[in-house]
Amino acid sequence: MNCEIINVGTELLTGSILNTNAQFLAQELSKLGFRVRNISVVGDNPKRLEETFKNSLKFNDLIVFSGGLGPTQDDLTKDIVAKVLNKKLIQDQSLVRRLKDWFKKRNLELTNNNLTQTFIIEDSVILNNPNGTACGLYLNILNKHIFLFPGPPKELKETYYLSALKILENLKQEKVISKYYNLTGIGESKVEDVLLDIIDNQTNPTIATYAKPGEILIRLTANGDQAQEFLTEKDKIIKERLRKYIFTYSDRTLLETVSNFLIDNKLTISTAESCTGGLLSEKFTSIPGISEVFLLGLVTYSNEAKQKLLNVNSNTLNEFGAVSKETCFEMCKNVRNILDTDIGVSTTGIAGPGGGTSQKPVGLVYTGLSLKDKIIVKENHFFGDRKAVQERTCNIILQMIRNELFSDY
Amino acid sequence: MNCEIINVGTELLTGSILNTNAQFLAQELSKLGFRVRNISVVGDNPKRLEETFKNSLKFNDLIVFSGGLGPTQDDLTKDIVAKVLNKKLIQDQSLVRRLKDWFKKRNLELTNNNLTQTFIIEDSVILNNPNGTACGLYLNILNKHIFLFPGPPKELKETYYLSALKILENLKQEKVISKYYNLTGIGESKVEDVLLDIIDNQTNPTIATYAKPGEILIRLTANGDQAQEFLTEKDKIIKERLRKYIFTYSDRTLLETVSNFLIDNKLTISTAESCTGGLLSEKFTSIPGISEVFLLGLVTYSNEAKQKLLNVNSNTLNEFGAVSKETCFEMCKNVRNILDTDIGVSTTGIAGPGGGTSQKPVGLVYTGLSLKDKIIVKENHFFGDRKAVQERTCNIILQMIRNELFSDY
Repeated sequence: MNCEIINVGTELLTGSILNTNAQFLAQELSKLGFRVRNISVVGDNPKRLEETFKNSLKFNDLIVFSGGLGPTQDDLTKDIVAKVLNKKLIQDQSLVRRLKDWFKKRNLELTNNNLTQTFIIEDSVILNNPNGTACGLYLNILNKHIFLFPGPPKELKETYYLSALKILENLKQEKVISKYYNLTGIGESKVEDVLLDIIDNQTNPTIATYAKPGEILIRLTANGDQAQEFLTEKDKIIKERLRKYIFTYSDRTLLETVSNFLIDNKLTISTAESCTGGLLSEKFTSIPGISEVFLLGLVTYSNEAKQKLLNVNSNTLNEFGAVSKETCFEMCKNVRNILDTDIGVSTTGIAGPGGGTSQKPVGLVYTGLSLKDKIIVKENHFFGDRKAVQERTCNIILQMIRNELFSDY
Repeated sequence: MNCEIINVGTELLTGSILNTNAQFLAQELSKLGFRVRNISVVGDNPKRLEETFKNSLKFNDLIVFSGGLGPTQDDLTKDIVAKVLNKKLIQDQSLVRRLKDWFKKRNLELTNNNLTQTFIIEDSVILNNPNGTACGLYLNILNKHIFLFPGPPKELKETYYLSALKILENLKQEKVISKYYNLTGIGESKVEDVLLDIIDNQTNPTIATYAKPGEILIRLTANGDQAQEFLTEKDKIIKERLRKYIFTYSDRTLLETVSNFLIDNKLTISTAESCTGGLLSEKFTSIPGISEVFLLGLVTYSNEAKQKLLNVNSNTLNEFGAVSKETCFEMCKNVRNILDTDIGVSTTGIAGPGGGTSQKPVGLVYTGLSLKDKIIVKENHFFGDRKAVQERTCNIILQMIRNELFSDY
């Protein structure tokens, strides 16, 4: 089933906002086995919107709109879709009641503008939007399937999962199943090299790789009655070639996987960061439930802080410098001791853009891991800008924890 | 001059990557006064790419491509553009030399595949790409202006600034000038309310607002001979109505503005974070040069850490709890004292999703600022998810520093 995504909004054409809706919809649709043929972004311009929709109807069976459902004059999606399909807009009384409630609860005045949101295209199905006042709509006309979603990403996502996903799942003419592999310690081009034969000849299953800093997610999607068989066959090959890099058979990130391992096993952790400047603790603390095990994060940017809070020996700092194996060693060892946590980790390096020398160039980073009976310090040489170096550093820390504690996963 | 952006790449249609190129190009083009009419995303599909380009030529004078310039078989942009414009592809010897050098330096083998990157469309101008092997191209044919950029965002940006910007500036038929206002402490809808008359009647200057967490950037862009006059007129109105929220007359963020104020004035700072979990120190340490003044960051998630490292009184924690005005007060006061910095700041609150009670609901956050002769603690009630609460908290800390130290900016 050919599919087009149409994102409506002048703010997308001025670059005021990043079009995350396009990515979300593209991912979800392709996960279900639909083939997105193209994505169009148009402004709040009736003529262009009409042109785009008419053109899309020629080539696609599934058309997904986002945006242009709000109460203001430049919200045109419903009007144009109705016009092109030769349908009327009719007021829905359940939406009127809902809107009145919504405004009453928030002590806001309900203006006539807002009431435009209670009009729906005739013969359409309402897609509930619990987070906002503009509901989504679904139409099935002349074998075309048309979805209208509100533009705010949070509202779009909730509406999608709550009301649209089920309809889309039923639209799939055949069974579609996916399998995930999340890898770390290997680059995307290397993964593609290793799987070139599968990638080049992909029809069923299809294979897609998604690169995040330091990790590569592989998604294998098969359809039809033999879907399971097809998957099993490729699954065997992927495991044969890449097993040691796979840290989870799901789309969970390395951060989520490591954090949940710590939480599940009640392993407490402290962090001592220099070049990552708090990024590592910020990452850990983004995980729900981590407060049980993440006890302390220190960002010791200055030598003074390293000495006073981490008790790093001044001789070590003088002799080897703040960016050294020796300092990194003391940092992870000592941060672990402060609250006697099971794990202590440390980072010190030159994230750039300044601060590099010929002996210690930008990208040189030491990462340390201290356990009860073992301390490991790793020397790393990263490329890329400051942010990239910091992200890679956090990734290495997570890899070190994984390798020591559950690599046989 | 009507303009279309065409992003090429199947990975955009599967949602594998977020289309940041579209936003970057849309922003840059509209900054220069070009009107982006629409954005199209197409896969690595010759027929569709040809269709899209031909259609675009009907409506637009400026067409900007990204992606599809690489060495592999599915990199088609150059071929299709050449075909539609009835031009040949010719090998450029300077590119051959550059490519050979590039591979030699990196000790890599130069394959025939790669040599496709040395072919350019006849009559085109090469746009240098210092970060990659695929150069950009610019064509001026039949009053149409066509740009081809490499797809990797970093390469696209560098190529844009290095080689394309100047050409685009010369294309502008008239003078275009912009003025920026960056505001904090006010919401986007409120800004739009206050400036409704300007927004509704915008022709020249145009006005655009860009919302980031806790800040709103306003860009005023005027063109023509009277551009300066037009700007001055609206500038007066904006200042009259919004002055107290404006923290800089540039597109610098609040974080950059505050950090650079600290650096310029050699004011040292320490942070003690609970509910922001390191986000605040991560933000500060992302600013080049901050290491001179950002001396220490503590992430004291546990009560134990608050007592042991921050010396928060156990009575305070028992009587008022970790999320309290009193704890926040001691946190900023004591963190400042550890290394005797000019400023100490602290955050403690309930970022959610768990941990809320009826007395202390999710979104309750205390933010503290300790200076030499003054300690301020603010009680905040935020809405939104965990990340949103953390972002808002960091924003309030920055606002507090600004308000105390340079609000008369």
